[in-house]
Amino acid sequence: MRVGLLQLNPVICDFKGNCEKIFQAAQMAFEAGADFCVTPELAVIGYPPDDLILREDILVQCVHSVKDLAIRTKNFGPLLVGTPWRSGPDSTRLYNAACLLADGRIDKVFSKTLLPEYDVFYEKRYFASAQNPGVFEFMGRKIGVTICEDVWNDPDFWGQTGVDGQPVRSLCAEGAQMIINLSASPFSVGKHRLIKAMLGSLSAKYNVDLLFCNQVGGFDDLVFSGRSMAFDAHGRLTASALEFAEDVLVVDTKNPEKNRLSAHDLSSSSEIWQALVLGTADYVRKSGFNNVLVGLSGGLDSSVTAAVAVQALGCEQVTGVLMPSPYSSPGSIEHSLELAANLGIKTHTLPISELMQAYDLILAPIFKDYQPDVTEENIQARIRANLLMAMSNKQGKMLLATGNKSEMAVGYSTIYGDMAGGLAVLADVAKTSVYKLADWLNKTKNKPFIPREIIAKPPSAELRPGQMDRDTLPEYEILDPILSLYIEKGSSFNEICALGHDPDLVQKIMYMVDRAEFKRSQAPPGIRITEKAFGRGRRMPLTAKCVHDRSTADS
Amino acid sequence: MRVGLLQLNPVICDFKGNCEKIFQAAQMAFEAGADFCVTPELAVIGYPPDDLILREDILVQCVHSVKDLAIRTKNFGPLLVGTPWRSGPDSTRLYNAACLLADGRIDKVFSKTLLPEYDVFYEKRYFASAQNPGVFEFMGRKIGVTICEDVWNDPDFWGQTGVDGQPVRSLCAEGAQMIINLSASPFSVGKHRLIKAMLGSLSAKYNVDLLFCNQVGGFDDLVFSGRSMAFDAHGRLTASALEFAEDVLVVDTKNPEKNRLSAHDLSSSSEIWQALVLGTADYVRKSGFNNVLVGLSGGLDSSVTAAVAVQALGCEQVTGVLMPSPYSSPGSIEHSLELAANLGIKTHTLPISELMQAYDLILAPIFKDYQPDVTEENIQARIRANLLMAMSNKQGKMLLATGNKSEMAVGYSTIYGDMAGGLAVLADVAKTSVYKLADWLNKTKNKPFIPREIIAKPPSAELRPGQMDRDTLPEYEILDPILSLYIEKGSSFNEICALGHDPDLVQKIMYMVDRAEFKRSQAPPGIRITEKAFGRGRRMPLTAKCVHDRSTADS
Repeated sequence: MRVGLLQLNPVICDFKGNCEKIFQAAQMAFEAGADFCVTPELAVIGYPPDDLILREDILVQCVHSVKDLAIRTKNFGPLLVGTPWRSGPDSTRLYNAACLLADGRIDKVFSKTLLPEYDVFYEKRYFASAQNPGVFEFMGRKIGVTICEDVWNDPDFWGQTGVDGQPVRSLCAEGAQMIINLSASPFSVGKHRLIKAMLGSLSAKYNVDLLFCNQVGGFDDLVFSGRSMAFDAHGRLTASALEFAEDVLVVDTKNPEKNRLSAHDLSSSSEIWQALVLGTADYVRKSGFNNVLVGLSGGLDSSVTAAVAVQALGCEQVTGVLMPSPYSSPGSIEHSLELAANLGIKTHTLPISELMQAYDLILAPIFKDYQPDVTEENIQARIRANLLMAMSNKQGKMLLATGNKSEMAVGYSTIYGDMAGGLAVLADVAKTSVYKLADWLNKTKNKPFIPREIIAKPPSAELRPGQMDRDTLPEYEILDPILSLYIEKGSSFNEICALGHDPDLVQKIMYMVDRAEFKRSQAPPGIRITEKAFGRGRRMPLTAKCVHDRSTADS
Repeated sequence: MRVGLLQLNPVICDFKGNCEKIFQAAQMAFEAGADFCVTPELAVIGYPPDDLILREDILVQCVHSVKDLAIRTKNFGPLLVGTPWRSGPDSTRLYNAACLLADGRIDKVFSKTLLPEYDVFYEKRYFASAQNPGVFEFMGRKIGVTICEDVWNDPDFWGQTGVDGQPVRSLCAEGAQMIINLSASPFSVGKHRLIKAMLGSLSAKYNVDLLFCNQVGGFDDLVFSGRSMAFDAHGRLTASALEFAEDVLVVDTKNPEKNRLSAHDLSSSSEIWQALVLGTADYVRKSGFNNVLVGLSGGLDSSVTAAVAVQALGCEQVTGVLMPSPYSSPGSIEHSLELAANLGIKTHTLPISELMQAYDLILAPIFKDYQPDVTEENIQARIRANLLMAMSNKQGKMLLATGNKSEMAVGYSTIYGDMAGGLAVLADVAKTSVYKLADWLNKTKNKPFIPREIIAKPPSAELRPGQMDRDTLPEYEILDPILSLYIEKGSSFNEICALGHDPDLVQKIMYMVDRAEFKRSQAPPGIRITEKAFGRGRRMPLTAKCVHDRSTADS
């Protein structure tokens, strides 16, 4: 049997566009010999639609879209399409479903059993759990339908109990010889290896073919990497689709040697780079923009952000803005211009000294009894944001924020200043990872890309004379592992200290992270590349009291 | 039997402070003759703790706090205290529970059955559903324990089917003669009437005493109004606690005539006023601030925001900042100063003309081929934000944003400009409600409060010569009902038009609301006073395509 996996990049609620994509991809697959085709999870509306699917009119459009697709694909083979679905006209229950379209009508409807309600997932807010496992027969084979999370709780793989049910086991007990999985599984670094191991283990355990059709594209803060796959009944990978791009992969389950196995570059930096590029391209374009602005400081973060933007949108679409102050090093201009030349982007230079003086003057009567402090630094950052946003408003270009995850974590950033923008490209990339990414970029590209001086110089916000990040923060090599433990692993004070980190430093860092919650709550979306990003998957109170020390943790 | 309802205002994760409050309140209640006492839902940690309760160390502190409370209240009567609770050491299941403390130990643990997962609630993200209804015997009576949502799905009251179970029915089937409800039920205008009717109906239906102990206070964007209540077995209200304040209410179920019935002022404006005052006071103080800044424009929103701040924090703690531009009307200064005098707050005046000129000058080369547009208006708003934030940073005062819900809805506001602040006091109050509130305030206060000129003049942002809100927006009397239907009721284009609203206008407004999603995603928290606020209860994609017109809605 030949199954077409339609690895598509929908736009949330663009029913017409999404269905046209499904139709075209299905046509291509059937022309290439597919017997039936599968879309990713919720392909008709795109994943995740969030609270939009609480709207009656949106659900009506989902139903119309699916019915319309059924009619349009009447002369194709069967098509399994992901969509929200209610079980009947009187029911208030909504399911995360897959409709089997055949002969111009909706032949069967299957639903998701396991509804994830953790991290970035909120599916119990919207969906009811499937009541019955879904198996259908086609070309003499029994095919079991699962949706994303349904394949994610095999106790033999995870070492857990699978208390919420094991859909694959149920389907195989019903006689399924092939498992289809419609997915929208968000990317994070290294996760693809896990998915591959997990699906291979599952297909071998149940002795079934397993086909995984994943969404691709950027969806606000989430990126989906595609890389749809097929496994044979021995758990061997027999086919795989492109990474970070749309693809139509026809899988021949009988003659697996005919299948395409796309090569996947799984180095961390390569994965991060591709995720940032796709995430940026889709965020900007799906927001209705074509052009972006990046404030160039001569530092690493703004350089890498500009490089991502150029790869995502093209150099003609990216403008660099240099806004030197009296505290800017000579290198800040020189290195920025070198970077801009390397990237082929145009720049503007707007010195801000006079604006700084104007603010100082107007605030002098109020500030006369106060010493200079971080306030004056924030004023500079906010002057720059005002200039950038003015250009954004006037020219219709989206401003990209350049802050990295380490800064965002400890609040080493100015709200309404350098945090301003439509998208924070590096918000989930720790500073040490930004360094690795820059090195990888320079190695990968065959021309000078990020100037070596930018990578070599010690990080500085250049907001006061001689300022260095290390005056305020620990070295990033020390900071980042602690941040990763606290934020990504959810480790406690005691657990982090037990790994040998300095308790005073750990306490200070945890306190800084907690105190910056209000800033992050007003930050632009970032592109999630780790297991735990700031944003939709991390819901924190702003007015909580959080104490991290031995006295409370041990009490 | 006499039951002490401990209507408390905890701080999220302030275990020591929260337990001290519970102890003191319990002591007071037992001294006043209570036989046993009850706290609100999750009183040990405060509601909602959000993702903090995913942390192991936080859960450990909950357990320690409850055990410690048990020991400290050893000589009191039984105490039913709300806390997260795991069913056993090996279990990964967490419950939203009530621990019955008696004789220095945890005697029994009851759990919540119905876990809300809609609007502002995300309880299925954290909790498992109770397996067994909880009844205990005390002084010869069987008492059934419910938690918040557990009393919210009686099919006879709601006309629904109660498919997820009916905890009260189950408890009464087990012989419960009294129902206790530990609640943290967020305030919205008019909801208290509903709660009263619902609880009265339930107690009459099952012929049981029903005691409702509700949290009070501001928790980020949520306000809880307290107003704990007791109903007799005929559904009659026999006792009620204070509104928008902590209280200890001892309810005598045998001699209800001895109970206190606090008078509740249920006018909409009064409820909104009290919610905004409590929400502001708690947000500012729980964030560690005592003082606030308000930019005074001479308009209604900033005037009402300043009035709320004065009531919440005291006039000494509020500073008004006037930042006139060449486009400011003479009234903007005069009326602001009159307001400040009425409120007894100090002011600073910082004219921004020179800063505007400095920005114009620096941007002139880039903007030379463009016409003036909204960009120049945004620059002014962002200059003001920079000045206000500089004062905030320098003086440790929280900036309050002044925008109303109508503006926030249609995006008639400047991101990083007038939207800047730690808290947006009026973000859930429609402009027409702000007018009503101002009129109510002036009627209620026995001195001049909001100057009449401020209420009388047509709304204007004063960002260009002669600008009026009505040049860009429909009159608020027309706009607000459409916004309410779309945002609060979730009505579709067709449904709104069917009520007689102009289809072109409806389409335009829906489009404006959709387009402003990215701005709201970076807004400070507002104080929720309606059934549907922007913020935690409304999760919307930023890159969705949303079309509202007949062609799609009817297709």
